[in-house]
Amino acid sequence: MNLLAALQDIVGTDHVLTGTAAQPYLTDWRGRYTGQALAVVRPGSAEQVAQVVRACVAHQVPMVPQGGNTGLCGGATPDGQGNSVVIALTRLNRVLQVDTADDTITVQAGCTLREVQQAALEADRLFPLSLAAEGSCTIGGNLATNAGGTQVLRYGNTRDLTLGLEVVTADGEIWHGLRGLRKDNTGYDLRDLYIGSEGTLGIITAATLKLYPQPIARCTAMLAFNDMPAAARMLARARKGFGAALTGFELISHYCLDSVTRQFEQLKWPFDESGRQCPWYALLEISDSESVEHARERFEAVVGQAIEDGEVVDAVIAASIAQSNELWHLRESIPLAEKQMGKNIKHDVSIPVSRMADFVEQTNAHLQAAFAGVRHIVFGHLGDGNLHYNVAAPAGSDETAFLRLQPQVHRLVHDSVHAFGGSISAEHGVGQLKKDLLPLYKSDVELALMRRIKRALDPHVLMNPGKVINTADI
Amino acid sequence: MNLLAALQDIVGTDHVLTGTAAQPYLTDWRGRYTGQALAVVRPGSAEQVAQVVRACVAHQVPMVPQGGNTGLCGGATPDGQGNSVVIALTRLNRVLQVDTADDTITVQAGCTLREVQQAALEADRLFPLSLAAEGSCTIGGNLATNAGGTQVLRYGNTRDLTLGLEVVTADGEIWHGLRGLRKDNTGYDLRDLYIGSEGTLGIITAATLKLYPQPIARCTAMLAFNDMPAAARMLARARKGFGAALTGFELISHYCLDSVTRQFEQLKWPFDESGRQCPWYALLEISDSESVEHARERFEAVVGQAIEDGEVVDAVIAASIAQSNELWHLRESIPLAEKQMGKNIKHDVSIPVSRMADFVEQTNAHLQAAFAGVRHIVFGHLGDGNLHYNVAAPAGSDETAFLRLQPQVHRLVHDSVHAFGGSISAEHGVGQLKKDLLPLYKSDVELALMRRIKRALDPHVLMNPGKVINTADI
Repeated sequence: MNLLAALQDIVGTDHVLTGTAAQPYLTDWRGRYTGQALAVVRPGSAEQVAQVVRACVAHQVPMVPQGGNTGLCGGATPDGQGNSVVIALTRLNRVLQVDTADDTITVQAGCTLREVQQAALEADRLFPLSLAAEGSCTIGGNLATNAGGTQVLRYGNTRDLTLGLEVVTADGEIWHGLRGLRKDNTGYDLRDLYIGSEGTLGIITAATLKLYPQPIARCTAMLAFNDMPAAARMLARARKGFGAALTGFELISHYCLDSVTRQFEQLKWPFDESGRQCPWYALLEISDSESVEHARERFEAVVGQAIEDGEVVDAVIAASIAQSNELWHLRESIPLAEKQMGKNIKHDVSIPVSRMADFVEQTNAHLQAAFAGVRHIVFGHLGDGNLHYNVAAPAGSDETAFLRLQPQVHRLVHDSVHAFGGSISAEHGVGQLKKDLLPLYKSDVELALMRRIKRALDPHVLMNPGKVINTADI
Repeated sequence: MNLLAALQDIVGTDHVLTGTAAQPYLTDWRGRYTGQALAVVRPGSAEQVAQVVRACVAHQVPMVPQGGNTGLCGGATPDGQGNSVVIALTRLNRVLQVDTADDTITVQAGCTLREVQQAALEADRLFPLSLAAEGSCTIGGNLATNAGGTQVLRYGNTRDLTLGLEVVTADGEIWHGLRGLRKDNTGYDLRDLYIGSEGTLGIITAATLKLYPQPIARCTAMLAFNDMPAAARMLARARKGFGAALTGFELISHYCLDSVTRQFEQLKWPFDESGRQCPWYALLEISDSESVEHARERFEAVVGQAIEDGEVVDAVIAASIAQSNELWHLRESIPLAEKQMGKNIKHDVSIPVSRMADFVEQTNAHLQAAFAGVRHIVFGHLGDGNLHYNVAAPAGSDETAFLRLQPQVHRLVHDSVHAFGGSISAEHGVGQLKKDLLPLYKSDVELALMRRIKRALDPHVLMNPGKVINTADI
């Protein structure tokens, strides 16, 4: 039997897509990568995923797992050879169990992140992973890339929120690892090996995740600073003053806030004239498990002291949930404002918090020296040391010409990240975008260990080729 | 050159121990396992560890890494063949860096856990891993076994506290992975693969760990319950009421508390007559980042409500740090009291919290049916679903005869754990003790994946043979 017929037998004719029907699965949402595939197959169960994998292995056909197709590094887009099968997991979209005694939720990989958050909320619990694409990204994709987001400071990355996994191995067997235990020291940590491996070692089909109590109250403020070290000192104060109640500390440059308010009429500067002149802002949020009054008192004590000490130039404290949402809306609109203003060269990097200010100052200076007039779009999760450090063409210049400089800009920025002890991919993963960068910044020892693991868990070298690791060396 | 001479060349004659000098390294602290070795070698740097590994590989000699030698599963004791080299890491005992801006500490593997805690405290930070052996266990051993302890509820296991590692691979190369980044998604998660692998894949020589703010205040209480479901309900209240401030919830059976107060004259029952009759107790602790008053108010609100609702029969709230220490002393003296009362059959298991009460009731009943009169020594970290479920000979019976039943008792208890969806090793690891149990409770798929990883990262199959995984199948 040929492969397409075999796939149709497994999942049904309706769920093997080719031609026009397959197109949406062959391009990433940013439109950076477009590939080809023999077919897109949409299995309806882990067992079907396993059968599909076995069929592909039998035909020696490469497989590209895909979730919500919202990745930023091309990790879910097939290459141009047209010899692979895209395995789309979106039909695996059931919430299997919400356990409020153990504070766990078990979901299939194709649930959107918002569906997981929603199921938790309905049980009066919090699933704290939160990021811009949450309405359409899937939890399987979040697991495959170890997604971060805005609450990592308090709750950790996707990895830290995961207790158990169900995985279809590269041989098409099912590892039933859906454990909800907080402690389990019985052998090698397969779970964390599959998390963040971007579909190159196997396919995650379900997960058991941690739930937390819903906070009773939240307090949000936008703070203005004279320089980045002041923002970093505020982070230290907030950590000390709020402890585990600190759930958000987002850094925003003046340029970003200015862009957002220019691009979107309905979004207003939260500050009056004096506060609008500051180079750096931070969105600070705490979550309280006691009461609205307590949250507010505590918030005002810590933030008030910082203002009194002259560390914070200006502060807007949200007086209502609506105002809090407005502040978050400013932050969350940055990527859209960026998009409206044209294409830019993006970097998702992390730097030790202590070195962040020096990194930005030096890297900005190096960029200006090499590419005079470029505009710096800098924002991110300061609490995690994670910056979105993007570079736009000089005002009025030829954007297309500038984008051709991407390799040189990437190199300059990533070299600087490396020199500051940082990582060239903080929360977006490697995918196609950064695969060839890893050898520049990782030791031969580490790359060799990665290749050994790839060989061990994907012996046919068919899982998501061309992503994360250079399989030519395998 | 023969191996001993090569080892002496690498670490110096003084640090290659044989004969009597080697003896203390060849028996585990509980005296359960005694092995033989060609030599005990004590390298003074990661580079020396790497050289030692390369020498052993060249001579095809198995290696047994060892930290503080306080493990409970024989994971650091060589087998009886006498053909291996014990690599003791206790000379790698330097705190390399305490970074209060990034809240990280970087330490060599041979530091004791207490030294790490102490270095954090001196910088006004908390390193929250805490367990009975902390004065002598090493952080390298904690990492190798992914140790748990009494604050996992809030801060997680050793794995969750680790940001970066330095590892000597099974080939004697050094992986320099001492990163202090909170976010780093650049490839496979080697860190978590080495953590918990009990020295069977490589040797951890240093780690970068997370630090937390020191809490401003702690509140501790011992609570008495009519049954275990009431204790579990109290845990749920505490989670909801205290949020992240809840840092300890230790379950203690009446038998345990009674034993401790009988064995140690200076330790008194915290309750008067009525409270002494309860079958279950819990040691509850919160840590507060605000003030002593706030901690106390909050504590009394939540615990007071539980008393008012009749969930808690009696409560002793520590009025001072000294009283808090006394309560903890009762909990921490359980293992010693056990030891004084003779040997028993131990189980370190985890169960979903929601099923804990049923597990204890049913397993107790099955044990009584099979081995009438046995005494149940049950305590543990209820907040993590982790029980130390130990079984002692019936009062007045022949202990030695009872200990011969260990395989049958293990089997009964572990079968029950498995049936309840639990794990047969929650926080102590596998070592020699449970290696042959894994195939009973893990799927063939999972065991096969583990073997593949073992082959990939320890291709000469020389790292800590006879631990965790059956190398006869490799």
